[in-house]
Amino acid sequence: MEWLVTEADVDAIALGAGVLGTGGGGNPYLGRLHLLQHLRLGAAVRIIPADAVDDDALGCAVGGMGAPTVGIEKLPTKHQMVGAVRALEAHAGRPFSFLACGEIGGANSLQPLIAAAQTGLPVVDGDPMGRAFPELQMDTFMIGGVSPAPLSLRDAHGNTVVVTELVDAFWAERIGRAITIAMGGSAALGLPLLTGAQVKQHIIRGTYTLARRLGRAVLEADRRGLHPVESLLRESGGLLLFVGKVVDVDRRTTGGFARGSLRLEAVSHDLAGAPAAGARQPAGESPVSRAHEGSTGGRQCEIEFQNEFLIARVDGRVVATTPDLICIVDAETARPVGTEMLRYGLRLAVIGIGAPPQLKTPRALAVVGPRAFGYDLDFQPLAAAWPGTQPEVAG
Amino acid sequence: MEWLVTEADVDAIALGAGVLGTGGGGNPYLGRLHLLQHLRLGAAVRIIPADAVDDDALGCAVGGMGAPTVGIEKLPTKHQMVGAVRALEAHAGRPFSFLACGEIGGANSLQPLIAAAQTGLPVVDGDPMGRAFPELQMDTFMIGGVSPAPLSLRDAHGNTVVVTELVDAFWAERIGRAITIAMGGSAALGLPLLTGAQVKQHIIRGTYTLARRLGRAVLEADRRGLHPVESLLRESGGLLLFVGKVVDVDRRTTGGFARGSLRLEAVSHDLAGAPAAGARQPAGESPVSRAHEGSTGGRQCEIEFQNEFLIARVDGRVVATTPDLICIVDAETARPVGTEMLRYGLRLAVIGIGAPPQLKTPRALAVVGPRAFGYDLDFQPLAAAWPGTQPEVAG
Repeated sequence: MEWLVTEADVDAIALGAGVLGTGGGGNPYLGRLHLLQHLRLGAAVRIIPADAVDDDALGCAVGGMGAPTVGIEKLPTKHQMVGAVRALEAHAGRPFSFLACGEIGGANSLQPLIAAAQTGLPVVDGDPMGRAFPELQMDTFMIGGVSPAPLSLRDAHGNTVVVTELVDAFWAERIGRAITIAMGGSAALGLPLLTGAQVKQHIIRGTYTLARRLGRAVLEADRRGLHPVESLLRESGGLLLFVGKVVDVDRRTTGGFARGSLRLEAVSHDLAGAPAAGARQPAGESPVSRAHEGSTGGRQCEIEFQNEFLIARVDGRVVATTPDLICIVDAETARPVGTEMLRYGLRLAVIGIGAPPQLKTPRALAVVGPRAFGYDLDFQPLAAAWPGTQPEVAG
Repeated sequence: MEWLVTEADVDAIALGAGVLGTGGGGNPYLGRLHLLQHLRLGAAVRIIPADAVDDDALGCAVGGMGAPTVGIEKLPTKHQMVGAVRALEAHAGRPFSFLACGEIGGANSLQPLIAAAQTGLPVVDGDPMGRAFPELQMDTFMIGGVSPAPLSLRDAHGNTVVVTELVDAFWAERIGRAITIAMGGSAALGLPLLTGAQVKQHIIRGTYTLARRLGRAVLEADRRGLHPVESLLRESGGLLLFVGKVVDVDRRTTGGFARGSLRLEAVSHDLAGAPAAGARQPAGESPVSRAHEGSTGGRQCEIEFQNEFLIARVDGRVVATTPDLICIVDAETARPVGTEMLRYGLRLAVIGIGAPPQLKTPRALAVVGPRAFGYDLDFQPLAAAWPGTQPEVAG
């Protein structure tokens, strides 16, 4: 179903995409302001189903490339994203008739909407990840064999690059990352060039609608009479893996990535007095108290990340692995917390959401499974289905 | 005057360009073999004067980008250079009618000739340096205001990049260098896109002819009855700054460059018995003995380099500064020695050749003078004129 993005949708998408970002995909703060400004000036942003795109229509996916730690303080310019789109369109030599999202997770959900507001092009409801991932080859377009070339990169100064030929998507990552670093650590990315037929074949459908659903679940938790974390769990079908306080963050911005690990410690009285949990739910049903059942104050959760949260362990036991989504939200408000915002003392809930089926094939796991990131672990699927194809939970 | 490159010319150009390379521009060994193969298969390579190019003709300069230390062992592929040209031509959307040399110094003199052999396009007799320099902004096209975008880069695997918009030539260097490093440390470079009018306005004329002249002077020294170093000095109008043995080389390949310094020590009996010098010249007139006049065994020469030799000091006193050419050749054979070939024990002659006048304007010195490389020194011009515009010394 086609829909127009409202101002309220922007908040819901930004929040839901933040959850799907699993720590990465960038902080939506700046993109949200930019997009709202366009909408207030009268721009219309249309989200269209993948099946509404003609097979031979031409377009591209867009987003930002770089470390989230850079993206929070390096301002993009107004025409950076659209400049990347136009560079690819000029190279293709045919006008584009749609845009796609390169990564629904985090700020990258908003970038195609900004480009859409500036160009009038519709945005396909979907993306090739259903989450965020740190490297370019890690998406269903690349896994499915769509050519990574041409791709375009543009920085805030207007420097623009079109990579016209590439051996494979790993070379796209290698060369694109080097260019992004030279551009100061963040850049607008147009990748890949797509026909409508390719969109329909490879895209994970409905992820803008999913992001909006997850965002609404948090924003409307009060109205639904639920703790925000519980509301998010119900809408996403996710599992509450841990609740605790950040006791250690080891984070380095290196090689164009934010890499490191995070340690949480359960604090039994953590949220006992949280009004939402206490006031609206019978004792023992709050997600917080459930997560703490049987726990001592010393239980620990350790999460490893490379822009995104990739592996979660509780007391040394692996409880979630990429490509399943390890989402970290504020334990009281259920607002997502990105890699770049982690700091000592935050009280967080760790939620596991099942990955889209397209990411769990053997071919996909070779690119986005734990071993692709250097962990000597097999993928251990969560007992939770991908929520993207489920009907919206009634508010 | 137009001329066709013969097999003998290839050797003379490679040798002369090696001298003009001032240590950089890459080792011509592989390029020479590649070009000779084309000529033996019947390819014709035409060198044409700049003034023979129509004002509105379109073409580009080509060469290799990267550290000479990488270039000696990383094999280029057959179509790497021509691929970079074709990528730029495709972006321009108009067929090219000429090629230009991006850097006459070192292997980069041969690369346009290889592309010419493969495309049939003529090569303009000239280049924008009259030597070699380590960075992209350091040429008369860039100093004169020719746009650095579009530029193209292509690696041995076929990965190809077109940088379509650039703030300035410094950004070309920054982004181009990052891409080159990601491509493994060496890449074929098409830069800049040129009209015939721009060629005529900015190119340093006749540098292919000059390279051939310098090469012939060395190759034909015997026939001219001269020591090869003396023959080179006469043809180039250069000054013999030092003769000595390498006692220390400090060289690192870092940030895509070969950086470091070189120390030579005069050895008074160094070449006393060199047959060419002793046999054919009156005592006291050999360049070797002249350079040693008044020297003790302890005299030292120190040379700093960043791909190219940039500053020469003798006993702590600065004797030559960029953009004047500091050329290092084997003290017996006058064969040029590149940065990547420096090693303990080599016996070398250091020759200073006056830079082309276009590099000595205030605007040019801001880009290629000592301060542009971080040295707290003003340019100290050698008492030697640029030899490019002088008639060939009779053989």
